[in-house]
This record gives sequence, C-alpha cells and structure tokens, in this order.
Amino acid sequence: MAYIKRIIIVALLMLNQATVLKAEDGHALWLRNHSAIKVNISSTVRSATVDLAIAELRNGWLGKENMTIKLNLTKNPSIKRDGFQLEETAINARTELGLLYGTYELLRRQYLNLPQRNVISNPSYSRRILNHWDNLDGSIERGYAGSSIFWGNTANGLNITNQDREKWKAYARANASIGINGAVLNNVNASAKILSPAYLEKVKAIAESLRPYGIKTYLSVNFSSPVLIGKLKKADPLDPLVKQWWKDKAAEIYKLIPDFGGFLVKANSEGQPGPQDYGRTHVDGANMLADALAPFNGIVMWRAFVYNPSPEDRTKQAYKEFLPLDGAFKKNVILQVKNGPLDFQPREPFSPLFGAMSDTPVMPEFQITQEYLGASRQLVFLSTLWEECLNSDTYKNGKGSTVAACTDGSLSKTDFTAIAGVANIGNDVNWTGHTFAQANWYAFGRLAWNNKLESKTIAEEWLKQTFLDDKEKKTDANFIKTIQEIMLDSREAAVDYMMPLGLHHIFAEGHHYGPAPWFSNDKIRPDWTSVYYHKADTAGIGFDRTRSGSDAVDQYHEPLSSTFNSLSSCPEIYLLWFHHVPWSYRLKNGRDLWTELCIRYDHGVQQVRSFQKNWDKIKGSIDSERFAEVQSKLRTQSRDAQIWKDACLLYFQQFSRREIPFEIERPVHDLQSLKELTKSRDYE
Amino acid sequence: MAYIKRIIIVALLMLNQATVLKAEDGHALWLRNHSAIKVNISSTVRSATVDLAIAELRNGWLGKENMTIKLNLTKNPSIKRDGFQLEETAINARTELGLLYGTYELLRRQYLNLPQRNVISNPSYSRRILNHWDNLDGSIERGYAGSSIFWGNTANGLNITNQDREKWKAYARANASIGINGAVLNNVNASAKILSPAYLEKVKAIAESLRPYGIKTYLSVNFSSPVLIGKLKKADPLDPLVKQWWKDKAAEIYKLIPDFGGFLVKANSEGQPGPQDYGRTHVDGANMLADALAPFNGIVMWRAFVYNPSPEDRTKQAYKEFLPLDGAFKKNVILQVKNGPLDFQPREPFSPLFGAMSDTPVMPEFQITQEYLGASRQLVFLSTLWEECLNSDTYKNGKGSTVAACTDGSLSKTDFTAIAGVANIGNDVNWTGHTFAQANWYAFGRLAWNNKLESKTIAEEWLKQTFLDDKEKKTDANFIKTIQEIMLDSREAAVDYMMPLGLHHIFAEGHHYGPAPWFSNDKIRPDWTSVYYHKADTAGIGFDRTRSGSDAVDQYHEPLSSTFNSLSSCPEIYLLWFHHVPWSYRLKNGRDLWTELCIRYDHGVQQVRSFQKNWDKIKGSIDSERFAEVQSKLRTQSRDAQIWKDACLLYFQQFSRREIPFEIERPVHDLQSLKELTKSRDYE
Repeated sequence: MAYIKRIIIVALLMLNQATVLKAEDGHALWLRNHSAIKVNISSTVRSATVDLAIAELRNGWLGKENMTIKLNLTKNPSIKRDGFQLEETAINARTELGLLYGTYELLRRQYLNLPQRNVISNPSYSRRILNHWDNLDGSIERGYAGSSIFWGNTANGLNITNQDREKWKAYARANASIGINGAVLNNVNASAKILSPAYLEKVKAIAESLRPYGIKTYLSVNFSSPVLIGKLKKADPLDPLVKQWWKDKAAEIYKLIPDFGGFLVKANSEGQPGPQDYGRTHVDGANMLADALAPFNGIVMWRAFVYNPSPEDRTKQAYKEFLPLDGAFKKNVILQVKNGPLDFQPREPFSPLFGAMSDTPVMPEFQITQEYLGASRQLVFLSTLWEECLNSDTYKNGKGSTVAACTDGSLSKTDFTAIAGVANIGNDVNWTGHTFAQANWYAFGRLAWNNKLESKTIAEEWLKQTFLDDKEKKTDANFIKTIQEIMLDSREAAVDYMMPLGLHHIFAEGHHYGPAPWFSNDKIRPDWTSVYYHKADTAGIGFDRTRSGSDAVDQYHEPLSSTFNSLSSCPEIYLLWFHHVPWSYRLKNGRDLWTELCIRYDHGVQQVRSFQKNWDKIKGSIDSERFAEVQSKLRTQSRDAQIWKDACLLYFQQFSRREIPFEIERPVHDLQSLKELTKSRDYE
Repeated sequence: MAYIKRIIIVALLMLNQATVLKAEDGHALWLRNHSAIKVNISSTVRSATVDLAIAELRNGWLGKENMTIKLNLTKNPSIKRDGFQLEETAINARTELGLLYGTYELLRRQYLNLPQRNVISNPSYSRRILNHWDNLDGSIERGYAGSSIFWGNTANGLNITNQDREKWKAYARANASIGINGAVLNNVNASAKILSPAYLEKVKAIAESLRPYGIKTYLSVNFSSPVLIGKLKKADPLDPLVKQWWKDKAAEIYKLIPDFGGFLVKANSEGQPGPQDYGRTHVDGANMLADALAPFNGIVMWRAFVYNPSPEDRTKQAYKEFLPLDGAFKKNVILQVKNGPLDFQPREPFSPLFGAMSDTPVMPEFQITQEYLGASRQLVFLSTLWEECLNSDTYKNGKGSTVAACTDGSLSKTDFTAIAGVANIGNDVNWTGHTFAQANWYAFGRLAWNNKLESKTIAEEWLKQTFLDDKEKKTDANFIKTIQEIMLDSREAAVDYMMPLGLHHIFAEGHHYGPAPWFSNDKIRPDWTSVYYHKADTAGIGFDRTRSGSDAVDQYHEPLSSTFNSLSSCPEIYLLWFHHVPWSYRLKNGRDLWTELCIRYDHGVQQVRSFQKNWDKIKGSIDSERFAEVQSKLRTQSRDAQIWKDACLLYFQQFSRREIPFEIERPVHDLQSLKELTKSRDYE
C-alpha cells in the first residue's frame, strides 16, 4: 500500500510540475525558456554586461554542441556605436554592450534558423528610448496594463523590494534583447517631486538595475520645478538663480547616477508650465536645461507637441512654433516630434517638422501604448504604422528624404540621433495587457535598432519566439502565415472601422476608446472636440487644409504640398485629412464618398470577424491560455468594431442624408443608445 | 400687414394639422381613418350594436357612392351563431352582433379590394376570448406594453374617468372588428379582491363599455375567495357553506352584469389554491363553480396547466391528471389547454390533451403576449405558430383529427366551443409595445373566428390595413411582399436563434427574455431550471421522452407515438424534445447534430439581419414614425439574436467538445460575460 501511495504522490508531483511548465502567462515575452545545448565561451573582457552575455549564451545556445564562441572587442570600422559583427565562432563589437546585443541577435538567429555568418548590424539611432507616462502614484497615463513597475507600488512609493529589482531586471533584459538603451521613468506631465532627493534615491536604484543591460535612465522634468520643490519665486529660464538651481540639480543627479541620460520636457503644452510663462521662448527654456546637463554629457529632449487655443488649425501649430527656432538650440538639445502633426491617430500623414528643421536634430516619438488604437483590448500591430511614417518621403533634400533619413543622421551626418516610444508596459503579469501588445513593444525596439526592417519580418520573428517552442512547432508554417497576416492587416482594419479615408480624432472624450463623432462642447476649446476635425455637414465631410482652407499643405515640401492640395491627386488614405469632400464625390474606384465610407467601415468589421475565424483555426498550435485570452479579446474587438461602424455611419448619415448601401450589413445599434454607451470606456 | 399675418397663421394651422394627420403613433391599429364615400343605410332593427354597425359603415364605406346597403336579421340556416352573409347590397345575420361583424368584414373587403358577393362567414368557436393577465395594482404579468387598461390607473384603482371609458370602447371596437367576443379582465393568478363589491362595480362599468361591441366580460377567480374575502374558514368545494358562498357571489355578479360570461380558474397550479388543498379533485372544484354559474348560463374555464414538483416529466403531468376525469365535469365546464404540453415555448409539439378527452370540451389557450418570444422588442409573428398547432393532427378519430377539429366542435358536434389568447395589450399608445405585436392580436382574433385561415392571408390583410392608406399605396406590392415574408419567416427565425431542433425552456430565470441554458439552482424544483430540459452532456443533448425515457410519446395516439418514439422518424423540428441525441448523430441533410445546431443558431442571426435589410429597403413606403420604431427594434433583435447564438453555442460547446464550424461567424461574446449580462432583461 505504501508503495502505491508513493507512486500516486510522485505522479501527482509530476502532474503538478507539468502544469506549471505548461502555464503560459506571457510574462516571458519573446524570451521564453527552452532547453539549451552546451557551449564554451571565451571572452577577452569581463564586466557586468559581458557576464550577462555569457549567461545568455549558456542558457540559450542552440548551435553545435560543445562549440567555443569568442566574445571580442574590436575596432573594426564597419561596426558603429553599439553595433556588432557575428562570425561562425565569434561575436565582435566595439563596446561591451555591443557584445550583449550581438549575443541576443545570435541566439535569435539560432532560434529562427537564420544564417549568422558575417552579419554586421549597427543601430539606426544612437538613443532608443522608452517614454513611460508613469505617475508617481503608480497610475499610468494612457496605460492599459496595470500600474507602474517603477512607482507607487508601496505605501510611500519609495520603498524598494527584491521583487521590484527582479522586475526591473527582467524589464531591462527584455529591452536589451531588442536594442532599447534608454528609459524615461516618469510621465511627461511631470510631477516636480521626481527631482526631490527621496525620489532621486529611487531613480538611482532603478538605474543600477538597468545599467548592466545598457539602459540609460532619463527623467521627465516639470519646468516649474525650481518653484515647486526649490525655494525660488519663479522658473524664468533667463533668471540666474533659476539657471543655478538646475545646474545644482544636474550635479546632484549625476553624483547619484553618473551615466544619467538627460531630461525630457513637455513645456507650454496642454497646461504644462514652460518658458513662455515668462515671455521666453522654447529655445530659452531648452538651452538653459542643456547648459545644466552639458558638463555631464546629458541631453535635453524637448517635445514639439505644442498647440494653443487659437483659431489656427491645430495641426499647423508645432511647425509654426518651432521652424523659426531652427538652429538656435544648444548642441545637446533634440526636438521630439510625434509621428503625425496631430496626436497618434490611427492614420495621419507624417509631421511636416521632420522635413523642416535643418540645424536642429529631430527625433520621432511613436506611441506604443494604444491610446487611440483600442487600448489593450484590440489586436492592432503598430509596426506597419511606424513603418509607413519612417518610409514617408519628406522631399527635404529631394526624393528619398524619408522621415527615417531625416532623423537617423543619414541626411544630416550627425551622430546625435534618437527615437522614442511611449511604453505600453505595466504591472500586469504579461506586461502589456494584450499578448499582441507585446509585439508592439518588440517592434518598436527592432525598428529603433534598424529602421529599414519590414513589419512582416518583425511579425514573423516575434510570433516564432513568442509562441513556438520546439523544433516541430517552429516549422508550423500555417500558424505563422495565418497570424502574421492578421498582424499585418490589423492596423488597416482599425483604420477602417474607426477612421477611414483620412478621418481623425472622432474619439469619445477622455478615454479615447470608443467613437464619439458627435462630441462637441461649447465649454472647451474647439480642437478638443470631434466636430472640429470631421466638419461634416450636408455638403460633405473633412477638414479643408488646402490652400483655400487652413493651408496646412504648404508646411510640406513640393511636390507633396501640391499633391495633397489637389483633390484629385491627394492619396485617398488622407482624403478627409486635407479636404472637405462632397458626399457625391467619386473616388478612384467609382464609388461616391458616402458609399465608400460605409463600405470601409463595414470592411473593418468584416476584417475583425475574419481575424476571429483565423485565430480559432490555429487552436492547438499554441498554448491554451494565450489562445483563450486572445480569442476573448478578439470577440470584444469584434463587438467594438461594430459599435464604431454603427456610431459613425448613423451619425454621419444625418449629414449625408443618403441610405446606407444595401450590400452591407445594417447597423445593430441606435445612435442615441450609442451616445450613452460610449460615455464610459467600459461598454460591457 | 394684417393680411399677410393672417396668411401665415392659416399656413401654420394647416401645417400643424398636416403634422397631426401624418403622425402615426399606432393607436389606430388596423382601423386607421381614411376618407369614406357617402352611403345610405337601411336597417329593420335598431340597437346599440346596430347603431355601431351603421356608424362604421358611414365612416368607412369605400363602395359605390350613394348606394343603399341594408342590414337584415335573417334565419338563413347557413348562417351560424354570430355569423353573417354579405350580399351586393345587404348584410344578413341571425343576430345584431352578426350585423356588426358583417359590417367589419364588408369594410375590410372594400379596403382590400376583395369581392363581397355571397360571402358567408361563421365563427369557428362560439367563445373567442382574450385573457388579460392584469393585476389589480395595474401591473401585467408578462405584459410588455405598459400598465393595465383596466386596473390601477388611479390611486384606488376603482375611480373611472371618461378617458378610461374611451379607451375601453376603442379596445372593444378593435376586438369586435376581428370577432373577439369575450375578455377575462384579470390575471389567472387571481386576487380574491376582484370579487369584492367595490371591484365588481368597476367590472360592471367595464362590461357596459364592452357590451355594445358584443364583448362578454369574464373574471379569473381565486379558489380561496370564500376564505380570503368571505368569512369562511375553508374553501373546500364539497362544503355546503362554500357552495352557498359561490352561489351568492354568482347571483351578486349577475345582478350587476346580466350577460356575465363566467369564471377562468387556475387551481392547484404553481402555488395557486385549489380543491386538492382539501383532498378534492379538479372535478369537485370545477363542478362546484359550474353549479353556481349554471342558473345564469355562466361557464367555467378550468385550466389544465398543472404540474407538481414530482420526478415525473413535467410535460406529462396535465394529461395524467385530467384524462381520468374525462366525462365527470358538468356541462358548463370547459378545459383550457395551452397549445403545447410545456409552456408557450417558441416551438412545442401540441398538447396530447387535445386528442385525449372524449366527453369533456377542451379549448386551446394561445399566448399572444411574447413571454418566451422576445417580449415587445422582437418582431415575431405568432400566427404561424398557432396555425401549426391548429393543423397538427392528433389522430384522435384517425387521420384528420386536427387540434382545430378537436376543439371547434367538428369532431364532437358540440356548440360549446371556445378559444383563448393571453392578451398583449397595455396602456402604451400603440397598445402592444411593438407595432408588429398588433399583428399577433389581430391574428389571434382572425384565427379564433376562422381557424382555417392561412397566416399569409392574415399577414397581408393586417399589413395593408395597418400601413397603407391610399389607393396608390394599397397597391404597393413590393412593400407587402417584402414585409409579409419577414412576418412569415419571423417565428422560424426566433426558433433558430433561440431553441432550434426541439430545444425548449433554456431561458433566463424570471424574465424569460434572454438565454440561460446554464441555469440550474439546487434550491428550486428541477423543472424550473434549464438543465432539466436540455440535459446536455458529453454524449449528447435533449430530453429522452421515448419509451426508454419518460415515455411522453405514448400520450399521443398512434401513429404519432411511434413516429415520435423513433429517432429516425421523429420530425427533426422536435428532435431534442423527444430524444437525447449523440453529438455525432447524422441528420437528414448529412450534417452531424453539433454542426447543424451551430448552423441553425447562426441562420437565426442571419435571418434577423436580412429582416433589417429588407425593412430598410421599404423606407418611404410607410410613415417615418413607425418605420423608425421598427428599424430600431430590429437592431435590438439583431443584437439579441447574436447573444442567444453565442450563449447557447459557447455553453453547449463545453459538452460537445467540438469546434464551431468555420463556415459560420464566430461568437462575439464570452460565456462568462453573457452569464452576467442576461441576468437582467435590460441588456443595453
């Protein structure tokens, strides 16, 4: 009997272990454990970073058994910055961090069965930075994956546990594996408290966890900090006391964090304080901070996201504000510019600032967190959106002056280049809420490293690493092909069910999740309402930004400005962005505008339904946990796409006064009930 | 200036009148005003009822101008009961009420452009009765169109206003126009108070309003009334004091209402008191009341809807209870039997009691109010359901012994026949909540008058009278054809998206609106749960009522009992009613049961979407008010059909363990959220 009992206990233990091993909670991201093969490693240099590279090689080696791989520091001029060279038996780099990056690339290639011989890879941007919009109380602005991993997790928000350090280490490792080398730890709508000694102590601790992985720490600063936490009466950037306060603060920071990266500043934007409060310019403000940081090689990332409650078209304002300041900034100042001239919409043309500045470095700001793209409920792979922006031709120096070339130093021959992504990371077990939101984090890192990568490659890499875990499954071509297609189609589907044909910013107030094309409020500035942007009336729909309208088209170089200006040559994906178009206007496919709008919205809904179907078809190819999670979220997305379609078509129909074409499905909601429903983000 | 001012005022007045004339609130039902042609009427008899006939002819005549039409009382033996004969220039009838019925039929035929020469029409049933489940506080059990038109509208519920009398008159007129001649004014779950002097005074007033239209008044009585409002200690039907109490009460009623119709009784059913409380039988109870009413020619309608918390299959219990009592009832007692053996489900086989009783009259009880068929939110035309029941062959006296024949006197050669419909009428302006619910009231009346009418005829009649109002529109064949098709398909669609293939009673608890196939509760009797009825398990689904199961099949005459008993011969519409069927069972179309179930549910959803599309296509054919109302309700129905499909497929999938076939759309809800959602009837 005792014998049998023992067998049962052993069996139960095994069962339990099997369950634990199989549970896929998404916490491992694209770095899931797999059984490694024995490898010998020799290195001419040792450091915390190189030790990490060695450990990763030991844990993840899938090459020849008992092979010896060398880690070499080299001065090979083909290798730039923290780039690296992979050889059959060696990783070569100029820096220790380059060795770590080379390690991750080598292991990725082994896992994906890609060749590794003579691969040289250099980063497109020097600084590849995540912006965390984390508040010091632990909440995250536009965060959909739980509370902050940095702040507020304990009563005073400053106590540090081993669990914190483990999380920060895992976070740093994930970032390093895709080449991210910087993190702004707090919200751009910054609390001045971040610069107080107590908080700086915590920043120091975080920086220590991130440092071995090559992640530099940055902070968002409140321009009024000298008043708010100092003892000064004002924060005027030309005031000597203010200058000194910032110099002292910089010294204090660098004493704690010698490799501190610098400041990110949102000034005179959406109510944040700034130099204009004292009659000074953005240049005055940025340069004052730059002077304080320069002795320590720190930088200032000054956000160009500014607009005033003026009658001027909001999308024109950043350009008008900053173009006159070109060349006046200190050498360690870089302008941080959102991909589009408005605000992270499902689709915008690129910001004209990318092609405008000649003597001021400009860095793109992408939004990884899905503020306007379905939060963590909807599967929307953003890589294609960023790819579209990076590949957009500004014509700054004639054809081929892409946004990528304007920002990665190709055109300006500078090495002071950077790119930022607003993080989608929180305390959720799987970091990002939606499993597929991990792909957006991954894609941002990969594009920041190599801005010529194609989204389809990124999707395939991510899918294989994230879902497939043995030789057999790695070759599950059907799974990869099916889900890669969903990912690549997902952003266009979202554009279709939310805002096709160049529509923009018709979101519900506040939560920015559902539709509210009807949103209008006399008590707030017009450019915070939806009707400001779509301008629907019985004649037509769209924002006239042509030369007869707001003339935003002329912020672009020729031939773009004329192309956008003319209704017939304007790309139809930007039609209602640049034109107020009659409902009866014939599109290139022969349909009138109203019919096309209806068909686009419906197509978006049908696309999500097809995603559902294709997802269901791959059941069994992956673990049941993440299968069920994504299946459930696609159901939500399907309902929400329907809500978008119904809300927009029923609302706009009041102006078009035309029938919804009978080839598409009818709305299943009433306009009035949708107005109620979408007030809260929690539809269900 | 004064002249212009006057013109403006006149114009505004005309505009206002036009608006009033055009506003279609549905209150006029199928009796909408239209401009009449002058007619002369001669009548050999005058009475309140004949005066109504004359007024209707004057207001609605569409025949030759200045023609003379005669109203004649006749003894023509081809005319039965309150039937009538239409001639070119006369309406002939045996009774004054027959003249009124002939008038409505004549006007209907003129309106519908049907021939009127030598039409003879006799009612299928002597008593054509609405059962109002109205409580004395004004609420209505299973009512979805506002509060009671009889009770509770004022503080004490007994005050009577002119508005009340106008409403009762309009109600009586609508009923008379379709041949209804009786109304039970209060809920079968009856308050004893209805028999108190104060309430009887109000019943008298209502009866006075209904009488000219030939509507007899009936009341539901509580079997314990002698205890509850008398001074007796018990209500034992064999107790002389109890007998006397009822005799006295009957005399009191008839003194107030000389043409009072009689009592409807729900006894020993779902907690109501009854003779079994004293060890007596249904016969003892019914006969005691029958004796009290007999001197005044009153009748007792004794409901057969009884079942006990016993292990016996609930659907078998009424038959088992009443068959042994056949022939023992007094001559003025009639058994009121619901169409199916369970409870007004979207589809049931007919109740075996219709074919069982030889010496006891039986009357069908249909439910007009949509307790289990979408309340007043869903467009479900019930005429096809009732037609299916009436045409079902019981084989009582061999082939051709339809439910209609078993109940309308064709088989038994009795004139004591009746039919009841549970009303869907309330204080809503349009009487029934949903405009198309008016069609169910209409169809019940028409079928009660002529149980051989086809639903397609009834739908066409109703549509033309309800929506089309001039010569041009009366010939709008496209509108009629399109919407008639929706109506005729609507019940089958509801069966598909709610309970296809013989599934039954998987509704949410209480409100009976949405799905809850998961509903189970140890604290209540099993036959009030859903799992009792579907019995889904990993082997299959359905209630085994074959000879190896509950043997309910043997309550039917041969060949039905054997047909139902065999899986291969059982009609597939009743499959899961009679059989527990393996998931892999092949249906006649070659599909396995699980696949067919999925496809049926999805088909129901697609059907509602097609109703939406077809409804939208007839925009402009009818008034905008009712167009918008129905459009909005079809949207709700579409969402709710989807909820039904998703809930049932996701729930049953847990047992079938099979994939939802990929040819249908995926669910867009999660099971867990649906369980929460459907707890309340108010999804939105």
